Amino acid sequence: MSLAEGITRNAFLGGRVSALQPEKGFRSGIDAVLLAASVPATAGDHVLELGCGVGVASLCLAARVDGVHLTGVEVQPEYADLARQNAAEAKADFTVHTGDLSALPEPVRLEQFNYVMANPPYYAPGSRHQAQDAGRETALGEQATALADWVRVAAKRLRPKGEAIFIQRTDRLGDMVAAMQSHLGSIRIQPLVAREGRDSHLFLIRGKKNGRSPLQLHSPLVMHDGPTHLKDGIDYQSWAIGVLKDGLPLPWIAS
Amino acid sequence: MSLAEGITRNAFLGGRVSALQPEKGFRSGIDAVLLAASVPATAGDHVLELGCGVGVASLCLAARVDGVHLTGVEVQPEYADLARQNAAEAKADFTVHTGDLSALPEPVRLEQFNYVMANPPYYAPGSRHQAQDAGRETALGEQATALADWVRVAAKRLRPKGEAIFIQRTDRLGDMVAAMQSHLGSIRIQPLVAREGRDSHLFLIRGKKNGRSPLQLHSPLVMHDGPTHLKDGIDYQSWAIGVLKDGLPLPWIAS
Repeated sequence: MSLAEGITRNAFLGGRVSALQPEKGFRSGIDAVLLAASVPATAGDHVLELGCGVGVASLCLAARVDGVHLTGVEVQPEYADLARQNAAEAKADFTVHTGDLSALPEPVRLEQFNYVMANPPYYAPGSRHQAQDAGRETALGEQATALADWVRVAAKRLRPKGEAIFIQRTDRLGDMVAAMQSHLGSIRIQPLVAREGRDSHLFLIRGKKNGRSPLQLHSPLVMHDGPTHLKDGIDYQSWAIGVLKDGLPLPWIAS
Repeated sequence: MSLAEGITRNAFLGGRVSALQPEKGFRSGIDAVLLAASVPATAGDHVLELGCGVGVASLCLAARVDGVHLTGVEVQPEYADLARQNAAEAKADFTVHTGDLSALPEPVRLEQFNYVMANPPYYAPGSRHQAQDAGRETALGEQATALADWVRVAAKRLRPKGEAIFIQRTDRLGDMVAAMQSHLGSIRIQPLVAREGRDSHLFLIRGKKNGRSPLQLHSPLVMHDGPTHLKDGIDYQSWAIGVLKDGLPLPWIAS
């Protein structure tokens, strides 16, 4: 199939997942793969992805977990359209709605989910220069939807004991933890670091509806071996290769 | 000097610091030493310790930093009295006031400090069974003073660009980060873990008055070598021996 202008096809999970996405603008990468690898869904579970973009995280989850029912919400119609195409090509049970967090489409509002996952915009509104591309702009967070709204909406859509899972830049850990504490319990934080001993740049966080366990801060997962960058992709640690290429879940979903 | 009944004398920092403390009740341990090792004070700085107990953290800081001016506030009169005795014996520049966070003594309210440090009660009010000992009870947090109040009061007593530094159990990371974000900036979190790869049990956190740098989450400091406990004190990692026995600061104070 020939591609429309400005659209590329990219492979994830060592080729298990293929997704169309805009050549310019917000492009999914390993964050989406890590997010999907952090969701402990099993067959029959209903999972909602907020701000699903072209659907990479949901498609990665569908590739790992047979029988999972996926719903996505994406505010930008052109990304939502690509997500629907990607879902159809993957024959995934993945329904994509075009819509905004602040006014979820009715079918989403009427459903409750076992898991809600999201990779919210990485930049706080007004915190950076205007991006060149409007799609990238919205995806990276110039929009006014605060992180707290993502957490509130996710928590509202969860069944009792359901879990919300987010991936986010570590400089926004404070906002994220504060928001999670307001709506969820049994919070667990999994920092990611590029190399041993470095500061965390990215973290995963999960929280349970009606959860009452104390907050846990896990030791960081180290992405790369060695003290400096050798060559792209060569020096991933074995757990990271398992997650990024072989489609394995992160260790924490088992516990 | 003979000891009053129910009072013991304990050594810290390999004997550099000696402190009287009640045999029963709240007893200072390595938390106080780690807290003192986290304060980047230099000669001439004014440092306030909130909830100083018998003064171990302040005395450890005095032992490391010549010419530092220390002030302590402690709500329990018998602990404050012991802190004064400990300060006198150590010939430390350490003034101890008996008083409550919610109504600081006037000399403390009139001063602004380069650093404020505290090891706030580890248990939220009402979260555990009543302790046998009233002193231990207050120190461990059955009192109604919320963590947020400790942070608010600390922030208020700081000079511009001054820093507040706390040590706390990791299950209260959420409350602590939320409170720090409300009053301070340039927040840095240093998790501590017992052994490599374990969840964090304790963390240090610092925040700067008027600070604007993004939050940083450092890789954890690992206390002990090896996967299991060998024998008390034998398997501390070298940085921990440096801090606990030799009175060295934590690595992060240099950066």
